[in-house]
Amino acid sequence: MDFMAERFSGVVLRWHQEGDQENRPTMGEIGLNHFAPYLMNRIISRWNSNMAEELREYELSTAKMRTLAVLSVSASLTINELSIFAVIEQSTMSRTLDSLEEQGYIRRTPRAEDMRIRDVTITEEGRTAFGRFWPTMYDSLVRMFDGIDEEEYRAFTGTLHKILLNIRKHEI
Amino acid sequence: MDFMAERFSGVVLRWHQEGDQENRPTMGEIGLNHFAPYLMNRIISRWNSNMAEELREYELSTAKMRTLAVLSVSASLTINELSIFAVIEQSTMSRTLDSLEEQGYIRRTPRAEDMRIRDVTITEEGRTAFGRFWPTMYDSLVRMFDGIDEEEYRAFTGTLHKILLNIRKHEI
Repeated sequence: MDFMAERFSGVVLRWHQEGDQENRPTMGEIGLNHFAPYLMNRIISRWNSNMAEELREYELSTAKMRTLAVLSVSASLTINELSIFAVIEQSTMSRTLDSLEEQGYIRRTPRAEDMRIRDVTITEEGRTAFGRFWPTMYDSLVRMFDGIDEEEYRAFTGTLHKILLNIRKHEI
Repeated sequence: MDFMAERFSGVVLRWHQEGDQENRPTMGEIGLNHFAPYLMNRIISRWNSNMAEELREYELSTAKMRTLAVLSVSASLTINELSIFAVIEQSTMSRTLDSLEEQGYIRRTPRAEDMRIRDVTITEEGRTAFGRFWPTMYDSLVRMFDGIDEEEYRAFTGTLHKILLNIRKHEI
């Protein structure tokens, strides 16, 4: 059973030509290997478990690392924004922020005009902690995209941006 | 804060030009929005939670749906293979198969030459159960790739295949 075999029969995007929702191709016609969400799940599950394993040495959880990564490129964010950008549920994010604050990696400042909202920023210590992990993360990215040139990488992330916009538009 | 802003500065793939592992760009230089695993995590987490919500109506779990999807395009698979292809941990997969067998959706047959190995196949009832859910899944795929033509879809899945091969090669 070779799932990497080329079995593309050109029917994945049949809807674009026909616009006929009743005439859907089957999963067998598309082939698992041409069903993009399946491939993305395979890849991202490996990426995430690899990161989780690497993080053990750095005494950071996936949630903490993601939070620091997002904050390292942001002026300040609310917990809602952080939860979306770091792809971490709000309840987990809340606990993660408590712990990061204890470690001195983040700071929470009530907003002057609405004290219920707190702006989260990264501290220098937080930047340093993320900086220690970054080479490991970056080198994994390099291995992941081995043999893929800049043009292909740009096209790939370009398609990912279109999908993200579709997700918002259609509220998928 | 607009994460969708174009901030690509052409440094993501610096290693290809320079091969200098000590001269890594920072996360800030790359920009979160050009860090592919981040974008993929955002997308696939939405896809998975959307599927999980839709599945409630069909009395199927994500693990069951994935198992049926993979079996629907396979002659037969072992639990190890199923676990990899369905992206479900072995312990969960074992419970999932017990339950699917009770529902009459799959069959497990000990292999003649090695009775410890059991080949898992889908039953007609299992095919029907997956077939009921398939239109929902397919229509989500259509919305996800709205405005993306066949050529772009092929290029996108082509890059995903390269990444999957890199993951095997580098054991990421």
